[in-house]
Amino acid sequence: MRVVIIGGSHAGIAAARHLKKVNPNVEVLMLERSNVLGYIGSSLNLYLEGTIADLDEAKTATVSQLMSENINVFIDTEAIDIDTEKKEVVALTKIEQEPTKDHFSYDYLILAMGSSQYQTGLSLQSDREITNYKTLEQAQQAIDTLNKVNKIAIIGAGLIGFELVESLTKLRKEIYLIDRMDNVLFRYFDEEITQKLLTKLPDNVHIILNSNVKEIQLDASERVSGITLTNGQRIFCDAVVFAINPRPNVSLVEGELAINMDGTITTNEHLQTSDPFIYAVGDLVSINFNETASSIYVPLVTNAYRSAMIAASNILLAEKIAFPKVQRTIVTELFGSYFASAGVNEEEAPFYGLKVASLTKTYTQQHLLAENGTFELTLKLVFDAKSQQILGGQLMTNQRDQVEVVNTLSSLITMQANLNQLSTMDFYFNPKFSLPLHFLNDLAMEALIRQ
Amino acid sequence: MRVVIIGGSHAGIAAARHLKKVNPNVEVLMLERSNVLGYIGSSLNLYLEGTIADLDEAKTATVSQLMSENINVFIDTEAIDIDTEKKEVVALTKIEQEPTKDHFSYDYLILAMGSSQYQTGLSLQSDREITNYKTLEQAQQAIDTLNKVNKIAIIGAGLIGFELVESLTKLRKEIYLIDRMDNVLFRYFDEEITQKLLTKLPDNVHIILNSNVKEIQLDASERVSGITLTNGQRIFCDAVVFAINPRPNVSLVEGELAINMDGTITTNEHLQTSDPFIYAVGDLVSINFNETASSIYVPLVTNAYRSAMIAASNILLAEKIAFPKVQRTIVTELFGSYFASAGVNEEEAPFYGLKVASLTKTYTQQHLLAENGTFELTLKLVFDAKSQQILGGQLMTNQRDQVEVVNTLSSLITMQANLNQLSTMDFYFNPKFSLPLHFLNDLAMEALIRQ
Repeated sequence: MRVVIIGGSHAGIAAARHLKKVNPNVEVLMLERSNVLGYIGSSLNLYLEGTIADLDEAKTATVSQLMSENINVFIDTEAIDIDTEKKEVVALTKIEQEPTKDHFSYDYLILAMGSSQYQTGLSLQSDREITNYKTLEQAQQAIDTLNKVNKIAIIGAGLIGFELVESLTKLRKEIYLIDRMDNVLFRYFDEEITQKLLTKLPDNVHIILNSNVKEIQLDASERVSGITLTNGQRIFCDAVVFAINPRPNVSLVEGELAINMDGTITTNEHLQTSDPFIYAVGDLVSINFNETASSIYVPLVTNAYRSAMIAASNILLAEKIAFPKVQRTIVTELFGSYFASAGVNEEEAPFYGLKVASLTKTYTQQHLLAENGTFELTLKLVFDAKSQQILGGQLMTNQRDQVEVVNTLSSLITMQANLNQLSTMDFYFNPKFSLPLHFLNDLAMEALIRQ
Repeated sequence: MRVVIIGGSHAGIAAARHLKKVNPNVEVLMLERSNVLGYIGSSLNLYLEGTIADLDEAKTATVSQLMSENINVFIDTEAIDIDTEKKEVVALTKIEQEPTKDHFSYDYLILAMGSSQYQTGLSLQSDREITNYKTLEQAQQAIDTLNKVNKIAIIGAGLIGFELVESLTKLRKEIYLIDRMDNVLFRYFDEEITQKLLTKLPDNVHIILNSNVKEIQLDASERVSGITLTNGQRIFCDAVVFAINPRPNVSLVEGELAINMDGTITTNEHLQTSDPFIYAVGDLVSINFNETASSIYVPLVTNAYRSAMIAASNILLAEKIAFPKVQRTIVTELFGSYFASAGVNEEEAPFYGLKVASLTKTYTQQHLLAENGTFELTLKLVFDAKSQQILGGQLMTNQRDQVEVVNTLSSLITMQANLNQLSTMDFYFNPKFSLPLHFLNDLAMEALIRQ
């Protein structure tokens, strides 16, 4: 059997490897239009912070690695057409001066073209001082731009925007962080957590909320000079960075496969598209979120991996795996603290028709034998106001260990646990590492008492 | 309303505090026969290792703390009788030379007398060189004994025994660790894990398995000179330490309340005894274990806390909480590695009539950006051979963060997750802290493929 994979980012790589793991005899072909495999999107901040010395390190696989795993990799090879009748992909390979046109036949096709960041409705653009940094190439250009300038506007106060803010403040740039929502890190954190984050920001960061960008101004030499917001406010800056959510790359299959309203490819729960021999994975698909009965777009690496493995399994194995409900579980480190979130937050709950209650508490003792510590853990539980089913959780802490709590929370949300069950869940105790009553037990028990 | 609590260890303290938390107006009386509250049993090793400078630090509460929380504490006060008709406890207070006899009436009574270590069937005993160390007083005596001697036999290769072994090897004692089972840390870890542990033992530790103690020899001056095992083997040593499981202290209520075959007090799921006005908690009760449909004795601090809070809630609140299934979740640190376990292990599964399968794997990369690390995590999943429901998990690691995985596992076991669900569970990814595919996802997916 031959499986062709279009796209060599996280989802494509995970699919290829999982196919080989399930059945080493399956023939796997991967087509990637750039010459980069598995770049960790938005690794710019890892570079700026010195975590990696070169953006090239922010890759999960190389061509030769995959080839040694008997995966046939074609880089610089762009799929330009799919003939679903003949079951073949037409692709242009640009590795030499003259492009080669190839026809790759398949038994099954996995679409893993990923997503791109772009912005619309803006009147002016400049290649130099307006940038985003999702791909390796974009990130390399962004470094050149950011090194030259001093005042930077970042559009989008989400996870990737905020991580960039932190990196840039260390370089003592003047930062303007603009978001259309009334809170930073919207959909991940409620005010109890974000208020604490905002107090940690240095003076050179300026947060501008409830604001949309109307126009980017360029000067006579086509350099960025500022931004105008829709409310008329002007911000003077010499570079603009887009840190907004990406959109799926579906142009290859438009007209050929069913597409959802949100631009993602329509699939069933087994990740099969409207053509049963074609699966779509990663940033191309929408996902069932939590208990909301809503399908939402969650372009996270974790979902790329999971969807890829599920599609690969479903192609090769008799027992089908359904793509599960996801909790949008994340962890980030910002300004010396760790932040983690899973499931629905309180602020967004009404958008899903959910009526929730919550409880937030700050803990200052890490383990039983700890004395006079500086430990801090702020933990928030979000639960259905009536059934008390746990729907979400958020935390902020200065202790690395504690972020792992978010995986426990995510599991409990997925498994539909309620406060009662969480209050008595069996968590370990060791006087050197924990308290006899786990933070989650305590918070759930307190929520029960208050009800 | 007045609630009397007999016993001031973990369960008694947790019950008292939880009663006050649920309703500050409830009158709470605590009777404790010793003058020590909330001693962390078997803290001897914390002292020997220097984690605490004084055994007195290994306490979770003081009398004055509880009194300031409006809990009436009577130390040196031993309950000697319960008149269930009159609903009153008769107690002797020995704080002065002459004992005072008091009658404490109650609306509800919570029994939290805890457990004691003792040994039977041995022909000889010595107060000096044969010791255990569950209580503060015993532990203080044990320190005197252990400081004097060089060759020490420890009976019981469970958690507390093994933790003591580690502490004593640091003091360069010659240690003989004896257990009747054919594996150390039985019921917590299977061979895949314990074999790794055993390779870390220094030369001065001698493990003797499948062995029962027949006799302890004393010399002419009544000092310990050795041990004889039931197979006739003799071990020369100058002290014997019992690190065997404790038994419930139920003599006060024998004849008055229903008692189970295993010596624990019979309760319903709400922790009510055969007298509806009397609840039993902590080390006095048996617990529903996992999916085994078995009630077993799990005298862990975590269960003491949970049972105490549940009993307190059930006395005061209309909505009753059932004592949940527990997973016997634990974490320990031994010889530089961390060990964690939850649920059923493979070796004991047949005892519960379970037919299980398992998968064990060792991971050496901690996070995506880690290079040439020394990270090691050995993870074992135990699941039902047919339904693939997850029944247990064990791990050994050199990385503190990773022990938190056991709480996630414990939750998943309790919530009856199966391999399929675990393989796609939504765990976070951050290149600085984790891999795109969590160890648990990977292990479950691999188990699915192998089935």
